Amino acid sequence: MTKQQLVDQIKKKKSFLCIGLDVDLDKIPQHLLTLEDPIFEFNKQIIDATHHLAVAYKPNIAFYEAYGIKGWLALQKTIDYLNQKHPEIFTIADAKRGDIGNTSTRYAKAFFEDLNFDSVTVAPYMGSDSVEPFLAFEDKFTILLALTSNKGGLDFQGLQSGDKKVYEHVLKTALTWKNAKNLMFVVGATRPEYFKTIREIVPHHFLLVPGVGAQGGNLQDVCKFGLTNNIELLVNSSRGIIYASSKTDFTQRAMENALKLQKEMALCL
Amino acid sequence: MTKQQLVDQIKKKKSFLCIGLDVDLDKIPQHLLTLEDPIFEFNKQIIDATHHLAVAYKPNIAFYEAYGIKGWLALQKTIDYLNQKHPEIFTIADAKRGDIGNTSTRYAKAFFEDLNFDSVTVAPYMGSDSVEPFLAFEDKFTILLALTSNKGGLDFQGLQSGDKKVYEHVLKTALTWKNAKNLMFVVGATRPEYFKTIREIVPHHFLLVPGVGAQGGNLQDVCKFGLTNNIELLVNSSRGIIYASSKTDFTQRAMENALKLQKEMALCL
Repeated sequence: MTKQQLVDQIKKKKSFLCIGLDVDLDKIPQHLLTLEDPIFEFNKQIIDATHHLAVAYKPNIAFYEAYGIKGWLALQKTIDYLNQKHPEIFTIADAKRGDIGNTSTRYAKAFFEDLNFDSVTVAPYMGSDSVEPFLAFEDKFTILLALTSNKGGLDFQGLQSGDKKVYEHVLKTALTWKNAKNLMFVVGATRPEYFKTIREIVPHHFLLVPGVGAQGGNLQDVCKFGLTNNIELLVNSSRGIIYASSKTDFTQRAMENALKLQKEMALCL
Repeated sequence: MTKQQLVDQIKKKKSFLCIGLDVDLDKIPQHLLTLEDPIFEFNKQIIDATHHLAVAYKPNIAFYEAYGIKGWLALQKTIDYLNQKHPEIFTIADAKRGDIGNTSTRYAKAFFEDLNFDSVTVAPYMGSDSVEPFLAFEDKFTILLALTSNKGGLDFQGLQSGDKKVYEHVLKTALTWKNAKNLMFVVGATRPEYFKTIREIVPHHFLLVPGVGAQGGNLQDVCKFGLTNNIELLVNSSRGIIYASSKTDFTQRAMENALKLQKEMALCL
């Protein structure tokens, strides 16, 4: 998918909502557990109920990996379902990978070619040659961790080095890498006070913002500094939508909570 | 496995060699490709030929993930084979994972419980609460990236912050985390000039050192500053051993190259 196609979809749906598919068998409605593949079935029903309100879905790979082969099969079926049934949807493998060059190429092929995701999240700690193998894929996006929403996020990202913090160095340095146009950045919604500086460094790249909802981030704050003339913003909600109910009404409740966010987003746009 | 059991194994074998199982179907001997599971078969034969010379094996998870379900099945069979046939061997899932707390717990369970690895490599970028879920597992080890061997390693790890570089902050801060005794650290062999400082910060933790051989690191340099009174050093070689030959003599040649390293190591000990 191209960046423009994603922007067009956002304008059409008046939504920049990404829904995180963090499937936990202990949390999904019990009546699904008797089915052959409850993980995929849960995802499919969530997607069916919310795809008109969301522009992106983000399976968190850890949740699938934790179920071994069964989990990988469910992930494969989920991405195939999205690609076939909803080709306009932007797909994110939230994998936070990153390794030395030849290994990163392996990861990139796994997510971009075999599974055919539009994007993958990548950790920056190992530097340029750990990220550039991902950036080499045309019309695929590498979403680099910059400033994360978790408590320990500032332990190292927040260290001051010269006139900048480490996460600012990450943003600035990444822009110099080959095929930097294929970058997006993860910036946690729990740190809106940093958004202004971030937008000054990366005014023309998409930000993927987790942390709205369960983690306490505020959508208005995020929009205020995150949106650009070309939008370039995706806001993720996982638990607040997919676990809105643990009963048979879970799709209805997921849809309602997604609609609530979509309406707020329409006002921001 | 406990730390003492690993140290005892090193003393017994006079080796602190870790062999990286980075299986690439384009590089393994062609005669294996007709077998049902060439990845596992290759690993099994390498392990059979070298287990008396090595104390640890480190499958690089990207290489398995790149082959999808087939790759995960081969990984599962490889770790099961190691655990059943050679329970004294220390096993490392080179996965470089790390995510917010509940997600890291998922990854930890996948590698420590389901696959039953002794250890997993973890990236530090997201800070304390992304690593502590791994540290919570008793007699399992979390091998934190500190200073990596690749060209871009210093892009962010080498940034100066106050009187320390970022990787030194990572080492020092990690020691304050809960269950820090379960930590080990990745330090690339290509940067021996940093070893002295590193050993001053972490004098009592194992270092896992990749980069000897194909990447250009020198074993003597690594031993000089890396070894402690209690050894606490693992040196990894991947391509130099497993791809020593691409013909039917690959196990013999792998054994010879492992033996060469083991003999150098025996002299260091």
